[in-house]
Amino acid sequence: MKVIRDPVHGYIELDELALSLIDTPLMQRLRRIKQLGLSSLVYPGANHTRFEHSLGVMHLASMLMNQLNNISIDEKNELRAAALLHDIGHGPYSHVTEGTIKYYTRKKHDDVREVLKRDEIADILHEHNLDPETVAKHIKGETALGQILNSEIDVDRMDYLVRDAHYTGVTFGLVDYERLIHEMEIFGKKLVVRWGGLKAAESLLLSRFLMYPSVYYHHVSRIAETMYIRAIQNLIDREILSPFGLNKLDDISLFEVIRSDDDYAGELGRRIEERKLFKRALRVGFQSLGVDVLKYRDNVERIEIELAEMADIDSKYILIDIPGTPEIEEMKALIRTDSKMQHLDDVSQVVATLEQAHRDNWRMGVYTPKEYRDIVGKVARDFFEVKKPPKQYRLTEY
Amino acid sequence: MKVIRDPVHGYIELDELALSLIDTPLMQRLRRIKQLGLSSLVYPGANHTRFEHSLGVMHLASMLMNQLNNISIDEKNELRAAALLHDIGHGPYSHVTEGTIKYYTRKKHDDVREVLKRDEIADILHEHNLDPETVAKHIKGETALGQILNSEIDVDRMDYLVRDAHYTGVTFGLVDYERLIHEMEIFGKKLVVRWGGLKAAESLLLSRFLMYPSVYYHHVSRIAETMYIRAIQNLIDREILSPFGLNKLDDISLFEVIRSDDDYAGELGRRIEERKLFKRALRVGFQSLGVDVLKYRDNVERIEIELAEMADIDSKYILIDIPGTPEIEEMKALIRTDSKMQHLDDVSQVVATLEQAHRDNWRMGVYTPKEYRDIVGKVARDFFEVKKPPKQYRLTEY
Amino acid sequence: MKVIRDPVHGYIELDELALSLIDTPLMQRLRRIKQLGLSSLVYPGANHTRFEHSLGVMHLASMLMNQLNNISIDEKNELRAAALLHDIGHGPYSHVTEGTIKYYTRKKHDDVREVLKRDEIADILHEHNLDPETVAKHIKGETALGQILNSEIDVDRMDYLVRDAHYTGVTFGLVDYERLIHEMEIFGKKLVVRWGGLKAAESLLLSRFLMYPSVYYHHVSRIAETMYIRAIQNLIDREILSPFGLNKLDDISLFEVIRSDDDYAGELGRRIEERKLFKRALRVGFQSLGVDVLKYRDNVERIEIELAEMADIDSKYILIDIPGTPEIEEMKALIRTDSKMQHLDDVSQVVATLEQAHRDNWRMGVYTPKEYRDIVGKVARDFFEVKKPPKQYRLTEY
Amino acid sequence: MKVIRDPVHGYIELDELALSLIDTPLMQRLRRIKQLGLSSLVYPGANHTRFEHSLGVMHLASMLMNQLNNISIDEKNELRAAALLHDIGHGPYSHVTEGTIKYYTRKKHDDVREVLKRDEIADILHEHNLDPETVAKHIKGETALGQILNSEIDVDRMDYLVRDAHYTGVTFGLVDYERLIHEMEIFGKKLVVRWGGLKAAESLLLSRFLMYPSVYYHHVSRIAETMYIRAIQNLIDREILSPFGLNKLDDISLFEVIRSDDDYAGELGRRIEERKLFKRALRVGFQSLGVDVLKYRDNVERIEIELAEMADIDSKYILIDIPGTPEIEEMKALIRTDSKMQHLDDVSQVVATLEQAHRDNWRMGVYTPKEYRDIVGKVARDFFEVKKPPKQYRLTEY
Repeated sequence: MKVIRDPVHGYIELDELALSLIDTPLMQRLRRIKQLGLSSLVYPGANHTRFEHSLGVMHLASMLMNQLNNISIDEKNELRAAALLHDIGHGPYSHVTEGTIKYYTRKKHDDVREVLKRDEIADILHEHNLDPETVAKHIKGETALGQILNSEIDVDRMDYLVRDAHYTGVTFGLVDYERLIHEMEIFGKKLVVRWGGLKAAESLLLSRFLMYPSVYYHHVSRIAETMYIRAIQNLIDREILSPFGLNKLDDISLFEVIRSDDDYAGELGRRIEERKLFKRALRVGFQSLGVDVLKYRDNVERIEIELAEMADIDSKYILIDIPGTPEIEEMKALIRTDSKMQHLDDVSQVVATLEQAHRDNWRMGVYTPKEYRDIVGKVARDFFEVKKPPKQYRLTEY
Repeated sequence: MKVIRDPVHGYIELDELALSLIDTPLMQRLRRIKQLGLSSLVYPGANHTRFEHSLGVMHLASMLMNQLNNISIDEKNELRAAALLHDIGHGPYSHVTEGTIKYYTRKKHDDVREVLKRDEIADILHEHNLDPETVAKHIKGETALGQILNSEIDVDRMDYLVRDAHYTGVTFGLVDYERLIHEMEIFGKKLVVRWGGLKAAESLLLSRFLMYPSVYYHHVSRIAETMYIRAIQNLIDREILSPFGLNKLDDISLFEVIRSDDDYAGELGRRIEERKLFKRALRVGFQSLGVDVLKYRDNVERIEIELAEMADIDSKYILIDIPGTPEIEEMKALIRTDSKMQHLDDVSQVVATLEQAHRDNWRMGVYTPKEYRDIVGKVARDFFEVKKPPKQYRLTEY
Repeated sequence: MKVIRDPVHGYIELDELALSLIDTPLMQRLRRIKQLGLSSLVYPGANHTRFEHSLGVMHLASMLMNQLNNISIDEKNELRAAALLHDIGHGPYSHVTEGTIKYYTRKKHDDVREVLKRDEIADILHEHNLDPETVAKHIKGETALGQILNSEIDVDRMDYLVRDAHYTGVTFGLVDYERLIHEMEIFGKKLVVRWGGLKAAESLLLSRFLMYPSVYYHHVSRIAETMYIRAIQNLIDREILSPFGLNKLDDISLFEVIRSDDDYAGELGRRIEERKLFKRALRVGFQSLGVDVLKYRDNVERIEIELAEMADIDSKYILIDIPGTPEIEEMKALIRTDSKMQHLDDVSQVVATLEQAHRDNWRMGVYTPKEYRDIVGKVARDFFEVKKPPKQYRLTEY
Repeated sequence: MKVIRDPVHGYIELDELALSLIDTPLMQRLRRIKQLGLSSLVYPGANHTRFEHSLGVMHLASMLMNQLNNISIDEKNELRAAALLHDIGHGPYSHVTEGTIKYYTRKKHDDVREVLKRDEIADILHEHNLDPETVAKHIKGETALGQILNSEIDVDRMDYLVRDAHYTGVTFGLVDYERLIHEMEIFGKKLVVRWGGLKAAESLLLSRFLMYPSVYYHHVSRIAETMYIRAIQNLIDREILSPFGLNKLDDISLFEVIRSDDDYAGELGRRIEERKLFKRALRVGFQSLGVDVLKYRDNVERIEIELAEMADIDSKYILIDIPGTPEIEEMKALIRTDSKMQHLDDVSQVVATLEQAHRDNWRMGVYTPKEYRDIVGKVARDFFEVKKPPKQYRLTEY
């Protein structure tokens, strides 16, 4: 049994299986994929990777399984393997490339069935008598045990919240995961939290709720990521980058391709490199918008051209960012009271209100170079029928 | 400038004034008054005292004043003195004795005007040209600067939340007070939080909200404290203890008086000493109660006798605990947006819902020795017309 | 399995046996015995108790046993019981009363054979089929497993170093006990550290070495403790306190007896209460002394009288403090390399030098009220033939 | 005044000057240079960068200057600028490329005079009336104030020790820098530590001493770095990489060049990428060596060829790693006692012994692919006349 030092959980134990899996190029690649995409532009400590996160998830999954009854050694191994491998489907910069990859390949980052059947990983799984198919299902959360990794209240979330807190320095993420795990069990095929873990579960949701505006939706990250996504699209359109190979790249190769380009993608890349980012011409929430903005999500480029004409500038200097509707799926985590299961938002007042409160965290943005900020702001406000900020909320800028 | 090592804030600087004040018997007494009363019976690390908390409050008050403009050295000194002295009105075991002291003396723990005018403290204040009257007003929060110590969102709360978290080990209290303080200012005589501190302010409320059931209202603490209060009352009734001298005692002298008593008070004291506490015969929230329980708050002893008769046991073995209506006054903290001030619960959805959610944290209790638990539970449920737990909330036991 | 929250180790698991033991008056008494005696006069956060330390030692002992082979459940239980009970022999204020108790009773704090055979504890041990005799031997470190609790490099030290660091705020104590424990094993009846734990073992020694002058030997603690010891002796001499009942008292009862005395003991007690401590008239290390000071250890009172005559003051205002020769027994911890065992100071250069370096941490002191400081300093320097500070070391004052 | 969140120091304040400097490509490049080179292969959390370290050094330098007297605002600004810029001379992967850069350019990483005179940085310094020449001297430690950044006991070390501890998770680095800084002053043009800071200074040395074998000299890092250095040399020899542009690259561009190479450099690069590293054929300290190994430092490649011939394998599969003599220059830090200054190793026994103890941390290594380990080990042991491990030290493997 080897151990590895993790700044978040202390020593993490690695058995033969874990060591073999870790020593594959597919897992090693995760060392070069930042957990938080481009957030290090805001939080300079946020350079942590999917690799250490994967170790952490395996660690917490083991901790949770150790207190469940009737789990065989093989099942444990299968889930530990799944925990380690759960993020190998991620492309460079994690969520930043997820949309593009999904658009072209129809695959989300947890669709790894095919990857697991390939050469090296498949060999290792077979050697340890583990079924790649089951491991893939675990990762998708399609099995009872798989809920530990992928469900409304899984160890994946627990690890990333405390890990993101450790590296950004933001205290909000400090979830009492030890307590929460201690109060979890499988109850009739479902992963549930016992009543005694209610407050710990609430605290996990509140953590995520607070982390969103401070970290995950921070406007500077959103701007950089929007620029990045556009640069990638540009390289794909110009056939310099294949969208089907994207999920095999790492942060390094992608960054190098972008910044060495001598056209639009390169211009965006070098702006990110030197932190000469676009600025907010507009950044508002639902209630400030006169239009149903979500319907524009699929026509973003057309509107950029429209706005560019109105502003009389090149459309490549206008980037529109319309995130999807914010959801907190943890609200549907199952809480067990005696023999009954209920959803977390049915037993917790605070949680019940988080849905709306979290909607208020949502922001759309229109980004442009500093020099065009005023004019783009003006035409964007017109186009999206932005209302004067209502009495009690002002145009927040986070 | 001397420094003292604080596990929460690192080094705290002490100037001449602070050193003189600390060296008085009144301040030294705070070393022997536990911050969290009897919570160490639940959280064995919770032995921290009002003394270190007072140093911490002074430290945070200085930090906040350092970023305010136009505060004279004298004003700073006056507020620093007030910060150090803000808890000298506390009786032994902090809040545990507060009700009794207030009942007899009509004084809350922040009514320290007279204490400040007495000998040693008064001399020190005069020596440094500080006005005891103003210091007393600061402590009551009746001045603009005094809001730093005593208002909806003051440094007192910030210190105790992080300090209680450090010593109990409960992670919920980890407020980002640095950020919050950095975003505070005096705006037209009012202490306000700028918009940029909104999330930090929300996190402070959420922290308190989560700390309540886990720490402040933990049923074991409530039981021990109820027993303690009754023991004190018994000693007062028997004229062994003077209620007017209570606020001069410390934990040590009070504990010694109680446990060395050879009657009812002593019996309760020794039960606490050996942790043979009363148990919950009933512990329910508002919604489980068929009666308006708050109206009984002033007649608790009469009902105990009534229940005792019904259960046919000595009334001294029934203790009823009806806490006051729970409030989160931080909800009314002022948030500044441009030139306008609004209450926190007007700008924050989550905060707005905390009032009700926090009401759900409230519990009344009926406590009795283990052997009477069943019978007392039965008569109490009848008396208070306890309903069957509603579908979505069960009789929580924290 | 219940859990209890410990600020140092997180959740600590308590099984039936542990819960029964904890619920005895003997263990509950440890809640009222401060781990660091009077150090809270220097470090206001240092109010932690032997109770939580005992939980911590049990936790680390379990952690260590979990990785040893061939230990039966019964053996584990026996050692866990021993871990919980290892400090029940301590008198009030821990080490402060140890010398006095030993002088009269010939018992050190780990001589608990008789206590374990008494009523309640004995009953519980028997109920769980554990042998009090073996538990007592474990506590003394006289068995193979007992070395885990009491040997050159035991979990007792690990817990108190990190715990003292947590509560004083001094960073020196942050030993990597997880690593150290992970590298320990029983090898031929001996508890040894494998080669891979060498650096962690070195760091434990260096920690203790650094904690000594900063915390354990801090001059203010030494002064208060010397005053305390003298107050106790005075009460014993006047037959107010029985030396044979001392180890059944707690901090509270002892403090109350002392400060309510109306003679010399009371005077010292009230000085401690109000922190009007004696001051250093002299505080020097071995190399500044012209006499072999250790030979005076048994005649301290005679010399105090002598000095008092020379200074023409009452001898009760002179307190001489001559600690025993400082030792770091961890130097003899066993390190295993392949099939050979060696002492830590044979394989580690730094450790080898710590003996001398630690001797340099030693200080004797002569303490007196402020007003006599000069005259007492003068006569003490004469009596102990204090040399001018040598070139490279000055009269350090910690 | 803007603030940035640092996981180590909390909020760091950035004024106009700092913001302008940070926004230059030269400073932004430090975001892409890992502080610990390739240590993340051992400690997966160690992805922190020179960028955040530079912010931390500025923060500590400000903290130290705030307690010095008679420093003008301009001097403060000059030193703060120097602190921010002190590492811009570093090449990719920090110390990994330092030797190569120095060999070709004759410049160490703190020789930044010319860089500071270039365009953007020079403009910013001039705008704020700061002299690039003085800033460069500060960085070299050639001025009185510059010692704060670059001397025997500077804030650079303090920051990297605690930062490396935070990200590796190794506890050894937890220096009490607050205390140390609090006890520092300029005394006759020299930066000294007052007597009260002696223990904190000792702890800093002990920290570095413990961090060396655990982190800085960890054999896996050394192997990867030796491979890396050789890959770079190979690219230079083949004129693919210019040694004179090396210090303008970042980790990303260098890594991409190496792994995309289709010859020897690429082979090494891909081995690092997939963590198929060379293994230790030999790794021993001075006392195991029959030859004066340091004299071979300049002929490493010749010996590799010789060993390769003896082992009958290609010389590119043998890498010899002979680090320079280990030094702890902090031993010469100045400690002030009254009006005298002495070196730390003259007043501290432990420190005095660290020189030898630290020499024992030194290891040379011969690395080779797994399959050649035995044969290369054999010929290397012969060549370097490796003795059987002496009685008390075995061939350590860290």
